[in-house]
Amino acid sequence: MKKYLITLCLLFSHLAFATPDFSGEDGYNLWLNYRPLNARQQQHYLSQLGTVYIADKSATTSVIKDELKRATKGLLGQKLSAVSSAQSAKLVLALNNNQLTTPLGIEQKSLGDEGYAIKQHKGQIWLVANSDVGLLYATFDLIRQIQTLADLSKINKVSVPKVKLRMLNHWDDLDRHTERGYAGQSIFDWHKLPDYQEQRYYDYARANASIGVNGIVPNNVNANALILTPAYLQKVKALADIFRPYGIKVYLSVKFSSPHLIGGLENSDPVKPEVQQWWHDKAAEIYQLIPDFGGFLVKANSEGQPGPGDFGRTHAQGANMLARALKPFGGNVLWRAFVYAHDAKAERSLQAYNEFVPLDGKFDDNVSVQVKNGPIDFQPREPFSPLFGAMPHSSLAMEFQITQEYLGFSTHLAYLGTLYKEALDADTHTQGAGSTVAKVVDGSLSDSPLTAMAGVANIGMDRNWTGHIFGQANWYVFGRLAWDHDLSAADIADEWINMTLTHDKNAIDQIKDMMMNSREDVVNYMTPLGLHHLMDTGHHYGPGPWVDNLGRADWNPTYYHRADKQGLGIDRTASGTNAISQYAPYWQQKLANPATTPTELLLWFHHLSWDYTMPSGKSLWYELVHHYNMGVAGVEKMQQQWQRVKNQIDPNQFHQVEMALGIQLKEAKWWRDACLAYFQTFSQRPIPEGFPKPVHDVDYYKSLQFPYAPGQG
Amino acid sequence: MKKYLITLCLLFSHLAFATPDFSGEDGYNLWLNYRPLNARQQQHYLSQLGTVYIADKSATTSVIKDELKRATKGLLGQKLSAVSSAQSAKLVLALNNNQLTTPLGIEQKSLGDEGYAIKQHKGQIWLVANSDVGLLYATFDLIRQIQTLADLSKINKVSVPKVKLRMLNHWDDLDRHTERGYAGQSIFDWHKLPDYQEQRYYDYARANASIGVNGIVPNNVNANALILTPAYLQKVKALADIFRPYGIKVYLSVKFSSPHLIGGLENSDPVKPEVQQWWHDKAAEIYQLIPDFGGFLVKANSEGQPGPGDFGRTHAQGANMLARALKPFGGNVLWRAFVYAHDAKAERSLQAYNEFVPLDGKFDDNVSVQVKNGPIDFQPREPFSPLFGAMPHSSLAMEFQITQEYLGFSTHLAYLGTLYKEALDADTHTQGAGSTVAKVVDGSLSDSPLTAMAGVANIGMDRNWTGHIFGQANWYVFGRLAWDHDLSAADIADEWINMTLTHDKNAIDQIKDMMMNSREDVVNYMTPLGLHHLMDTGHHYGPGPWVDNLGRADWNPTYYHRADKQGLGIDRTASGTNAISQYAPYWQQKLANPATTPTELLLWFHHLSWDYTMPSGKSLWYELVHHYNMGVAGVEKMQQQWQRVKNQIDPNQFHQVEMALGIQLKEAKWWRDACLAYFQTFSQRPIPEGFPKPVHDVDYYKSLQFPYAPGQG
Repeated sequence: MKKYLITLCLLFSHLAFATPDFSGEDGYNLWLNYRPLNARQQQHYLSQLGTVYIADKSATTSVIKDELKRATKGLLGQKLSAVSSAQSAKLVLALNNNQLTTPLGIEQKSLGDEGYAIKQHKGQIWLVANSDVGLLYATFDLIRQIQTLADLSKINKVSVPKVKLRMLNHWDDLDRHTERGYAGQSIFDWHKLPDYQEQRYYDYARANASIGVNGIVPNNVNANALILTPAYLQKVKALADIFRPYGIKVYLSVKFSSPHLIGGLENSDPVKPEVQQWWHDKAAEIYQLIPDFGGFLVKANSEGQPGPGDFGRTHAQGANMLARALKPFGGNVLWRAFVYAHDAKAERSLQAYNEFVPLDGKFDDNVSVQVKNGPIDFQPREPFSPLFGAMPHSSLAMEFQITQEYLGFSTHLAYLGTLYKEALDADTHTQGAGSTVAKVVDGSLSDSPLTAMAGVANIGMDRNWTGHIFGQANWYVFGRLAWDHDLSAADIADEWINMTLTHDKNAIDQIKDMMMNSREDVVNYMTPLGLHHLMDTGHHYGPGPWVDNLGRADWNPTYYHRADKQGLGIDRTASGTNAISQYAPYWQQKLANPATTPTELLLWFHHLSWDYTMPSGKSLWYELVHHYNMGVAGVEKMQQQWQRVKNQIDPNQFHQVEMALGIQLKEAKWWRDACLAYFQTFSQRPIPEGFPKPVHDVDYYKSLQFPYAPGQG
Repeated sequence: MKKYLITLCLLFSHLAFATPDFSGEDGYNLWLNYRPLNARQQQHYLSQLGTVYIADKSATTSVIKDELKRATKGLLGQKLSAVSSAQSAKLVLALNNNQLTTPLGIEQKSLGDEGYAIKQHKGQIWLVANSDVGLLYATFDLIRQIQTLADLSKINKVSVPKVKLRMLNHWDDLDRHTERGYAGQSIFDWHKLPDYQEQRYYDYARANASIGVNGIVPNNVNANALILTPAYLQKVKALADIFRPYGIKVYLSVKFSSPHLIGGLENSDPVKPEVQQWWHDKAAEIYQLIPDFGGFLVKANSEGQPGPGDFGRTHAQGANMLARALKPFGGNVLWRAFVYAHDAKAERSLQAYNEFVPLDGKFDDNVSVQVKNGPIDFQPREPFSPLFGAMPHSSLAMEFQITQEYLGFSTHLAYLGTLYKEALDADTHTQGAGSTVAKVVDGSLSDSPLTAMAGVANIGMDRNWTGHIFGQANWYVFGRLAWDHDLSAADIADEWINMTLTHDKNAIDQIKDMMMNSREDVVNYMTPLGLHHLMDTGHHYGPGPWVDNLGRADWNPTYYHRADKQGLGIDRTASGTNAISQYAPYWQQKLANPATTPTELLLWFHHLSWDYTMPSGKSLWYELVHHYNMGVAGVEKMQQQWQRVKNQIDPNQFHQVEMALGIQLKEAKWWRDACLAYFQTFSQRPIPEGFPKPVHDVDYYKSLQFPYAPGQG
């Protein structure tokens, strides 16, 4: 009996004390997660793709072959057999300048530099493009078709990017600190470059190429002039050499005062010939090392950065000076419109428009003005920036933030596909109905051929790249939308889940539902109904609506919510800051009246009484409390949904997300309780029946300090 | 023919353009790299170990089971079958308090708290210990036996640690910066703790347990007082809970001024009752959360850190005050002897001795004075610290540096087993011949039962933990020597290579030879013949022998090498600083005379003429040039040896080390050329025939700047 007991104990002890072993998918493979399909699926695709012929050779073709090998070995259990002629191959990859491809009847021009066709033709599948990089994109599309279990039997598609420059901006410093980075250190190990080349650089390039990203800026827009010194340019060259076969160009953030700082010139005034010459010489030096260098990204006269304004010159003068240095080599300038003057009297949301719209038409044709999606700063929800549509004679690039500076760092699940789509689909009405932001960005509404979309990266040394597995989806959706803004956020989520997590239909539905609601949850528990900029100072971690003592008025949350005994919200109508005047008349009219202002932006444009009657018939105070609680409930729902998919998800990935959701729920409640406790001091109204009261008083929330929160600027 | 050509091109193109795919061993598994043995070996071990019985259950037993499963599944291709009685098992794990183990005749006392026996007995293999942690150590030993292909048929060993506290010290800040860390950010993600628990924490614990490390200090000795605030203690508790089943206690570096900084007291004078009370209360608060908390590590009155000296109190008064707060709970104080007073007139190498020796016998019995191996600061070679042997009535802990602050960061291959052994085997002669440093550290030469060895960790978020694969060997050898300082550096290297890299005999010989010579190579190309502290300022990257303008004289390299027209080296004899007076008479006599001073320490103790005749018969200048060139040649030899083992090493690991060796060779030449160019300005002698001249003049080397070199303090 005793022995029996010991045995029983032995059996159960393992269960009782099991130590975590999360081995399995650690997330490193991202959506290029080539886990085996089932035998039937493998057989099916092998019958369609078993042999391959690639009629080209180059460094990029080599990448294609490696990726095909990796993908088919992983997904289908074996690599395709290379055959020696197109005729004998099931799968053919060919440039479209080839007599081979004539029978397919694909118009060469239709594919452009980077587009491609995938066509089923007489029992063969053809990937055709005008460039080897086009073929690489086609290859990744084909792999995606397999990963998402698509039917290839009648495939006939042409895909051409709608935007020319599809870029990641890394806000990474030379010491590997990443401003607003929540996934560990920068992946760019400047100290060990150029000689030590991490495998991660290659896998980063693969991931970007797979979603069509074709440009990267490895260094912070708050730039360090040293990046342009010879020692660092050798390091940049090493990266450019690695990335080139993947169709990715390297750009650099440059400090406008570099001629003075590292060139020894007296100053960096852009009209001075010696300053212009310095930049010309620097460009020549760079292109000597990196013949396909992309160009410069510039943050100038913004938040303390130097710029042409230091010498009484305009942004156009500054940008064009750099553009002319790059022009002979084919480089471009991305000039950021995120500026707010140091002692401007205008309300902050007005300032970029005020500075840039008068310069419309004055930028050289290799300059794009890079505009954040909203007029403030990457808040969970903003209206579209009024610059979109207001500069028809300029190239306007879209700048999205992928890293979740204001959306919960890397522990909150917030799928940004819906945010990006909301911004891109917004109708500016500047050239009549249908003048969407997307059409401004893709060039249809301007006379500039230069088009660009940039995403501020959420990538770091964390093994899964983005800290949160679902952060990967934001990198993915950014690239997919930069390629084609007509895709839907839901379809892209579907792709990503299939490729990354599971093929189980029910699980996909649950997870897609989580993703599609997640951003609205964040809006609700952080900044509902058009509130914005309520975060704590500096690190931007957690709520700080009470902060009112910073060096500039417009750094204070109180500047934006204007809570008082009467009510809440900032009046941006004619009776207030009149920011609505920067929008097209259609919007001016709508936004002038709370009743015709979209509810989700109400407090962005209006200061409303606590008793203001909302469309629901309830008071503003009630709806405020209700929305904060909806946000928390949304996270609780995500937790339940995630538990439901447990058996369909790799245990390691499941556990990571489970822990993060636990943190997200805690922090959602913290946001809700801290904000409501604070706003209640103005509203002087009780928390309505049925909703929980804040756990602590506002002084408690004010007392919390997080000096070492990550990603600080 | 054309078609044939295309085929040929296809075949070769892959070779020509192959993109790197270093997939394979990425180094994450460290020496717990359970790759399959060959079939014969698997069969052999399975026949000896096929069934297992574990007569105990606890969280630690669960760790044991998991590790056994993992190891046998990996190494032997299948896990062992658990059986329900000891009689029917091939492998039996049992506590020694058990009637089961009586027939084995192992004396319970002989194993102590952590020791174990592994004994072949009547066809069974028994692992026996007095504690479940002892069984865990036995398990890792058994796994090591298999990994190193040892014969188990007659195994009969008892292993007991020679030192009680075997600790890793992490110099990691709360923002995840690691002082003197070259493997990326800190593995301790304080922001996401306590709720987000990385798999890495568990694997870190496994690795440490496998080499007997039983204590860790997760935060920098340049301590932040916030670590003792309630929010951080919750995070520390989460780590302690994870590490407990692995036999690992958590300690904390504490700031001596904490009572003032976070306790609101007027100051932190250790004789004040309210200060003592504050520490008592804080200790109680910690032990409430962490019942087995290890204690405090303190850097006081050193390099700007606060300490008892701020109030005119001694180190003993400061240490004992903390010790008395911890005593009721069983905690210890590790009090660092790395001090040099801010305006001391004594030469720096004298200062620790001057401050601490007078305090011998005044420390409480739960205080250990933690002494760096040499009298300066972790240089590539130093004589042993004169404190060893000079404080027989105190516990002296050894502090080694595992991270290569002064030995090439994480790109230089420098196996430190030889350095540690040199220090441990050094004979202090303080109690006659044979009074080795090891015997001081293990307590044989003192009347204190508290013994400790600490290693400053080289661990970071790099996928392979240490940046350089061979950096893992330094973590490994530290742990093994802390357990048993009688092991040889070569045998430990042999174990590590077998466990980590390869079983191929020839490859092992080559790699072991590389490792065993590597530290002497570094000494030669950086600081030969007893030179020291020649590195550049602040970041300590690369040579800076010319630096002579820092805030304190003893921060300057010129303070240590004293190069002048006459010669080189610092006179530490009676005619100079008389540092030799701190050693035992045996050494005083030897070191007083260059002829009887060990050649490798010549310039540590003597200022010698450039023409001084060395034992070789050549001049000092010749030997200096010769040694610098031997260092470079040593790296070239390592490159050749590494190429020879290419086919026996995982391609990923091979490539990583290959790149690092390339950097090491570049930097070895840089050190040689910069130092010789500089010393030549004094010696005014040509580079002897047959040796290369420095590539640049000394001004070039002086001009190099590395503001973002990693790991800065």
